[in-house]
Amino acid sequence: MTAGRSSAAKTGVTRVVCEQLAPRVGDLSHNKSMALDAVRRALADGADIVVLPELVTSGYVFETAEEARTTAITVEDPFFTDLSAVLAGTRSVVVLGFCQHADDTDDTDDALYNSAAVVDASGVRAVYRKTHLWDRETLFFTPGDRTPPVVDTAHGRIGVLICYDLEFAEMPRRLALAGADLIAVPTNWPLVEHPAGQYPAEIIQAQSAARANGVFIACADRSGVERGQQWTQGTAVIDQFGWLTSSVAGSTASSDPSVSEQRAAADLFLHLSRDKAISPHNDLLGDRRPDIYTQETPLL
Amino acid sequence: MTAGRSSAAKTGVTRVVCEQLAPRVGDLSHNKSMALDAVRRALADGADIVVLPELVTSGYVFETAEEARTTAITVEDPFFTDLSAVLAGTRSVVVLGFCQHADDTDDTDDALYNSAAVVDASGVRAVYRKTHLWDRETLFFTPGDRTPPVVDTAHGRIGVLICYDLEFAEMPRRLALAGADLIAVPTNWPLVEHPAGQYPAEIIQAQSAARANGVFIACADRSGVERGQQWTQGTAVIDQFGWLTSSVAGSTASSDPSVSEQRAAADLFLHLSRDKAISPHNDLLGDRRPDIYTQETPLL
Repeated sequence: MTAGRSSAAKTGVTRVVCEQLAPRVGDLSHNKSMALDAVRRALADGADIVVLPELVTSGYVFETAEEARTTAITVEDPFFTDLSAVLAGTRSVVVLGFCQHADDTDDTDDALYNSAAVVDASGVRAVYRKTHLWDRETLFFTPGDRTPPVVDTAHGRIGVLICYDLEFAEMPRRLALAGADLIAVPTNWPLVEHPAGQYPAEIIQAQSAARANGVFIACADRSGVERGQQWTQGTAVIDQFGWLTSSVAGSTASSDPSVSEQRAAADLFLHLSRDKAISPHNDLLGDRRPDIYTQETPLL
Repeated sequence: MTAGRSSAAKTGVTRVVCEQLAPRVGDLSHNKSMALDAVRRALADGADIVVLPELVTSGYVFETAEEARTTAITVEDPFFTDLSAVLAGTRSVVVLGFCQHADDTDDTDDALYNSAAVVDASGVRAVYRKTHLWDRETLFFTPGDRTPPVVDTAHGRIGVLICYDLEFAEMPRRLALAGADLIAVPTNWPLVEHPAGQYPAEIIQAQSAARANGVFIACADRSGVERGQQWTQGTAVIDQFGWLTSSVAGSTASSDPSVSEQRAAADLFLHLSRDKAISPHNDLLGDRRPDIYTQETPLL
């Protein structure tokens, strides 16, 4: 399942744009328009891959499960048709988070999921349901029970994780082993303190995942203030060595929660992710030792 | 195998001292003395746990396998007896790297290993052989084939990794699942460029591993210049949230390779590693989803 280096690699530049937005909690109609506008802006900026935040159509700080339910949509919702229409005539790909109401054929339950969709002009290419739920999300959402997909797009292979998923190194590892060039991460990172002069911990996790797997990572975080909740505003594009190529954090505007729209944008050679050689004798994925990882660890 | 939170937790302060040293390649006699002196200094500073660099008794930049072999010792070497004698009357623990010649009963081969020993006043408590070899180490050493141990000491449970091992998130994860409070990492990080204002990538990896697993991490790196090779001088103690508690990197002296002895020292409440709760609804290890991690990842 390791991605072969002989894969047909794309050699063009891919422009990745992460839009940091401030949806209004519970205001589905407003948030849909805001999301579509953000995609239009990104396309006007030449974006090949656009990443929007987690739960961008619903907002995040729900008071009740009922409130969450009022914002839930299915993949049959006109929003996705509208989004594909915005993408018509382009080869661009959008990854965004939404509150999903499960009504597809193999789901007879009434559960809500914290999901992400991969969408292009042809429609919804894939949906992933967040498997690691953070804090009060556990009150509103059912955790997904399927591993995230890697979607082969016109701009390379895109894997998807959502927010807290990225704290589990097993997840980016699986996507890299399945051949992901870039991992798109819709996220809502609640602001927590971090030492002066250091990047937020969530960004450090993303940097580590990128470096450890030789993949690009694009995180779209939240801006604004929602029911008193501020956000890390950690929107960032990270290269395959783990370095920040473009990031809102650290910019002068990043500490001002009244700035509702910011972005991180970078022109990347995504095919570089397919070369995992990091020394004449080392290969990031080839050097793994699954025989060791499955042994019982002795406590002496 | 998950560490129970009901384990008898130690509540005292543990002083962890990482000594950043400059051994002379191939000069076993000098390096042994240097290592013992460093332990004496750390003990005089009140150290409970002392970490010395990878291959501290041998040096690193070998020209030939024969040269490496001249620095190889077994766990029966008088050096370890001398080290235990230095520790006599204390409850302190030392973790250090050495070039190991395998001659114990279950090893009939003539292989060399890049190993680390956990030593206290009672003797050598455990030996771990590096499983992920970096670059030219593959020319001199045989990779270990056993998972690293967690050693239950007077100052908590200490896991061991060596340098490049830490780039594989599977490794600190295993140690955390086996109950490690602190991971000691003897290391030799060759200097590579990193963006201004950011910490070296190896430190970012260590921060990520600490945060993801709620464990303390203590890395002892090299100083000096060895056959033209400079070092990251990334010696650091990292807390269970992933923040640098004490670090040589970023200090004014860290860019001066002529400074041969530096240290990172921190007083830690290691028992805090046993509480993996990070929100009212989340537990760092309990939130893992092994059912997801073993699924086949779809390529769509």
